[in-house]
Amino acid sequence: MMKIIGKMGKGKIYRDEKAKFSILLDSVAKKADIAEGKRAVEDIIRVIYRHQPISTKKIAQKTRLPLPIVAKVRTILERERILKRTERGAELTELGIEFAENFLKLKYKKSLTCSVCNGRGIVLDEFFEDILNRVKVWAKKRPLANTTIDQSFATPETSTYRVALMYERGDLEGKRILFVGDDDLTSLPAALTNMAEEIAVVDIDERILKLIEKFSQKEGVKIRTIKHNLRNPLPDDLKESFDVISTDPPYTVNGLKLFLSRGIEALGKEGIAYLSYSHKPIDEWLSIQKAITNMGFVISELIPNFNYYEGSEIIANTTFIARLIGRDLKAEIGDTEKIYTGLVKPVIRYYKCLKCGKIHKVGEEVKKVEDLVCECGGKKFKMVKREKIKE
Amino acid sequence: MMKIIGKMGKGKIYRDEKAKFSILLDSVAKKADIAEGKRAVEDIIRVIYRHQPISTKKIAQKTRLPLPIVAKVRTILERERILKRTERGAELTELGIEFAENFLKLKYKKSLTCSVCNGRGIVLDEFFEDILNRVKVWAKKRPLANTTIDQSFATPETSTYRVALMYERGDLEGKRILFVGDDDLTSLPAALTNMAEEIAVVDIDERILKLIEKFSQKEGVKIRTIKHNLRNPLPDDLKESFDVISTDPPYTVNGLKLFLSRGIEALGKEGIAYLSYSHKPIDEWLSIQKAITNMGFVISELIPNFNYYEGSEIIANTTFIARLIGRDLKAEIGDTEKIYTGLVKPVIRYYKCLKCGKIHKVGEEVKKVEDLVCECGGKKFKMVKREKIKE
Repeated sequence: MMKIIGKMGKGKIYRDEKAKFSILLDSVAKKADIAEGKRAVEDIIRVIYRHQPISTKKIAQKTRLPLPIVAKVRTILERERILKRTERGAELTELGIEFAENFLKLKYKKSLTCSVCNGRGIVLDEFFEDILNRVKVWAKKRPLANTTIDQSFATPETSTYRVALMYERGDLEGKRILFVGDDDLTSLPAALTNMAEEIAVVDIDERILKLIEKFSQKEGVKIRTIKHNLRNPLPDDLKESFDVISTDPPYTVNGLKLFLSRGIEALGKEGIAYLSYSHKPIDEWLSIQKAITNMGFVISELIPNFNYYEGSEIIANTTFIARLIGRDLKAEIGDTEKIYTGLVKPVIRYYKCLKCGKIHKVGEEVKKVEDLVCECGGKKFKMVKREKIKE
Repeated sequence: MMKIIGKMGKGKIYRDEKAKFSILLDSVAKKADIAEGKRAVEDIIRVIYRHQPISTKKIAQKTRLPLPIVAKVRTILERERILKRTERGAELTELGIEFAENFLKLKYKKSLTCSVCNGRGIVLDEFFEDILNRVKVWAKKRPLANTTIDQSFATPETSTYRVALMYERGDLEGKRILFVGDDDLTSLPAALTNMAEEIAVVDIDERILKLIEKFSQKEGVKIRTIKHNLRNPLPDDLKESFDVISTDPPYTVNGLKLFLSRGIEALGKEGIAYLSYSHKPIDEWLSIQKAITNMGFVISELIPNFNYYEGSEIIANTTFIARLIGRDLKAEIGDTEKIYTGLVKPVIRYYKCLKCGKIHKVGEEVKKVEDLVCECGGKKFKMVKREKIKE
């Protein structure tokens, strides 16, 4: 049975109440100082209304907004008494429900996202489930993410689903596939299918390549690994040698241009690109779309919330995957230096020593978490906070 | 259990056999004279390999290629003895299987498309299923499609799923929605939800508007109808008055530009657009993507094979839906005359009288099927063939 709440809303809202809520919405959006403005605040309230109680992380995933933004808006909404925090997550107050039903005119609470495929449109069968289980073991052996080069590891589910999507679209069997950067280890499930003609990985991080090499040896599959800084053109023997590329580049316009352009070198005039990328504010996404279009790629498919990443609550996020088809491709490289988010928007990260609990700063004197050793001798850390440096 | 067929393929293919298949693929693509070339032929063979026996219509849906193209390639592949036609549809011959397994390196036959949501990512719940059932009754009352203005009716499932998607993304409840052309009758399920703040339809076809008005009266819902030729700017009272627009425009670049631009007039500087559009060859889709980008829309989501249409086998096809978000929108209108496909690529359609079986030509002397009356007095016709006029 459907539940309709708030039938009383329409028409019975007082003029001054409407004005009050309108001013409130404006003020929350302004205080939060976010690119998407009122729409983002509306989205957050709608997601809470439909799914309450709900964790901040889940709100971020469902609204596709960055977690720090959601946390900020949530705090402001708490202060305005629109919502309250309970043990089980955020819930709307009576005022919040009034706001949702009388002003935003929400009334229906069900989610229609397919629970079988989680909105991805494809499902794993036994063959791919088996691959996923084998990938999980290896994913645990990954080194610590080097955030200075925007590493952030996709879950084993994510990498396996990517390969399943490639299979489903005819981009796996008999194809030569290059992973342009592969900290997500998507080459692992790809190799385990035994369907591709060739699988190769270029990455700057030797640790990732070594893990892939070890995997190949143990699992008896073939993955070509090439250590390479993508700021430089691809080695000649990789040029015009692939049918398909896959990349999850740094989430900056220059990062995307560089990684996709190296991908184009590998494809030649035509080919398929799987692009995983962050749900960006409209302005930024528009310049990305322009760059993609200029390179000669069409977006033949774009699935939001396809990719999920491992890590602390702070960076837990979700990104989309797009299947691009190119026919008359041309590289378009921007500034090859400022490709990582940390270089565009410097960030300080706070890590907690898992042994003694001491908090360490990373991003100024200590550049990356890998260089961190605690006074207690602890070498394992968990990120607990992230801050942008004001320039 | 997974089935792997063709394990023997890899490595055991003779050099001359490989050359033979390569030449064959080139020659089929060339004979078919299709924009997507070899890739399209590969896609067709892969879909048959995975789903055989399979009807031509299903091949067209799964490859997203136009039905006449698929029919043409199928005929050539038959002539080349790659496939045979059985009562149950197309099947690969022994040579075809060799081609698929040894040359294209296909081996796995399962489809991973989610069978619950059919790849759309969303499902209807009881509330929306109920709406679908009510829409079905009204869809039967539609007039005959006027193909000179590119009418082609989406199924009731399609229009209901569109509205479900709008709901899921937060673009329905409390929103003012304009349908820029609505031969698909998507305004019907939208109105039946009782969730929108306002629903309006502009269309050039009085028959469609009258049906919508009759529907509104009988079902007790409110849909504003405006008869309007979109070649002219929107009436002033529709300008900057909507949050969301939805359109399934003529599948020409000028048609898309015109309909989206009128949509922008309705939205003002920012808003959401649901665009349903045909899977076009890359070159054409690239100019569409450019136009969309120039107008200021980002493609936040693009779901292939979302829309299905009613009609004879000949025009049975599938299109995608894209959710566009605009922030600093500006209209971009091209040639406002050549907006319909028939004006860009003149077509002759052949209709069969359902009473006496006589075949009639439509497109030259007789411009549209509506003007057709058979000598036997028959007034109902079924399209049986379509031909492009060579210019």
